[in-house]
Amino acid sequence: MIQDDLARFFEKDRFAAHVGIELLQAGDGRARARLVLDERHRNAAGVTHGAAIFSLADLVFAMASNSHGTVALGVNVSVSFLRASRGGVLHAEAREVAINPKLATYEIRVTGEDQTLIALFQGTVYRKRETLEEIGI
Amino acid sequence: MIQDDLARFFEKDRFAAHVGIELLQAGDGRARARLVLDERHRNAAGVTHGAAIFSLADLVFAMASNSHGTVALGVNVSVSFLRASRGGVLHAEAREVAINPKLATYEIRVTGEDQTLIALFQGTVYRKRETLEEIGI
Amino acid sequence: MIQDDLARFFEKDRFAAHVGIELLQAGDGRARARLVLDERHRNAAGVTHGAAIFSLADLVFAMASNSHGTVALGVNVSVSFLRASRGGVLHAEAREVAINPKLATYEIRVTGEDQTLIALFQGTVYRKRETLEEIGI
Amino acid sequence: MIQDDLARFFEKDRFAAHVGIELLQAGDGRARARLVLDERHRNAAGVTHGAAIFSLADLVFAMASNSHGTVALGVNVSVSFLRASRGGVLHAEAREVAINPKLATYEIRVTGEDQTLIALFQGTVYRKRETLEEIGI
Repeated sequence: MIQDDLARFFEKDRFAAHVGIELLQAGDGRARARLVLDERHRNAAGVTHGAAIFSLADLVFAMASNSHGTVALGVNVSVSFLRASRGGVLHAEAREVAINPKLATYEIRVTGEDQTLIALFQGTVYRKRETLEEIGI
Repeated sequence: MIQDDLARFFEKDRFAAHVGIELLQAGDGRARARLVLDERHRNAAGVTHGAAIFSLADLVFAMASNSHGTVALGVNVSVSFLRASRGGVLHAEAREVAINPKLATYEIRVTGEDQTLIALFQGTVYRKRETLEEIGI
Repeated sequence: MIQDDLARFFEKDRFAAHVGIELLQAGDGRARARLVLDERHRNAAGVTHGAAIFSLADLVFAMASNSHGTVALGVNVSVSFLRASRGGVLHAEAREVAINPKLATYEIRVTGEDQTLIALFQGTVYRKRETLEEIGI
Repeated sequence: MIQDDLARFFEKDRFAAHVGIELLQAGDGRARARLVLDERHRNAAGVTHGAAIFSLADLVFAMASNSHGTVALGVNVSVSFLRASRGGVLHAEAREVAINPKLATYEIRVTGEDQTLIALFQGTVYRKRETLEEIGI
């Protein structure tokens, strides 16, 4: 299930659409998305581009952190690239590990075929008072 | 100036092309690139997407770390998003801060108009023995 | 249980002893340790010092990554401080999330009373060929 | 020069004292400190302990971020260990790279003899409204 406000939020995310990311689930501090890999996601060495992997992880980070109805801005992200991915489908899942009125932190796992862990991503947002509605979503 | 092997490397980077990144300079452990921002680089809140900023930083990270003629693979990246960017042109510059036969670390600054610092990025690569030529570049 | 070589490794860790860290379990890519907090672990604001929390996390990172019999060197660490800790006992647990002959990555959770998550730590090591025995352990 | 409030802040930092850190300069979003290395700063492999290096970097991070008179709390830190240190004296210097009313980011360089870069540290704080005076400093 995808929360209504997050469905609208996702629709307005031009970069995620350009990369080809599909949102699968979003709400209550969590989100899942997938990316069907094709030619445009490759780097010069022929493997999946780190920035494509990051874009997928970043999308679930944004969906999970904006799921409480107020605007969340990414402050800091750290990502470890664990194994090369060579095609197929990537999945990303964000989980909220801590939240207070001002800050929240998420852990995102990016997996490939057979649930192999491809990248581990840890990110913190600053939570504004502004609601998603107030920014037109 | 762009080293010949890095010019070929960049040409094969499908994701960087898809995002619209232009390589300005690359060689000797350094690289510079720019991204002219348009509609596709926006997020739902109407500001420049974190993943677009990351993609630009990642490209100069790859160019700088592969500039010694052997293949370098991104292991770990940490990025701080410092200020919102709302359009115009972004520049990224990578600088090598340490290198040994196996590992190298780079600092990347992403700046907007008037040289404002937009994001600070720190990344480490694992250096393979394989040459760029051996992977067909 | 603590692997014999890791027990000797820990005994030689002068800084961990100085901080007051106790190793509880170490072996097979995992480790657990605890820190009974006292006056010396406080910062100026009277809460547990970030560097004390880091020291505890770093110790299980070292134990887990050196548990395969060869020397592992910390390359990169990212830590999120999630909640203030005000005393009592801290526990840290390291878990291996990826390993290959050259690199390995660990996730470390630092928890306080009632298993509250205090800090989340992600670290990568470079794995040398040298055995622990060869460096005198 | 060390700002008066930061001198008092440093005096109350029990962990920094326990580690043996000396504050050299602090004020206006910057700070410098040093650590004369001895036996207690070693790890099992006989080199300077990553957590000792972190503790030094963390101290200048705290001094620089608390230098504006209001309380700053560390949210996220990323550190790259670039070269082994085997003794002597370490210096750390913090520089403010961005600041707004709620968040600020610092870059810290840890250097050894001959200004060799030992570690690079990037950290973000959350800035509270509370003044240092209000927490008794």
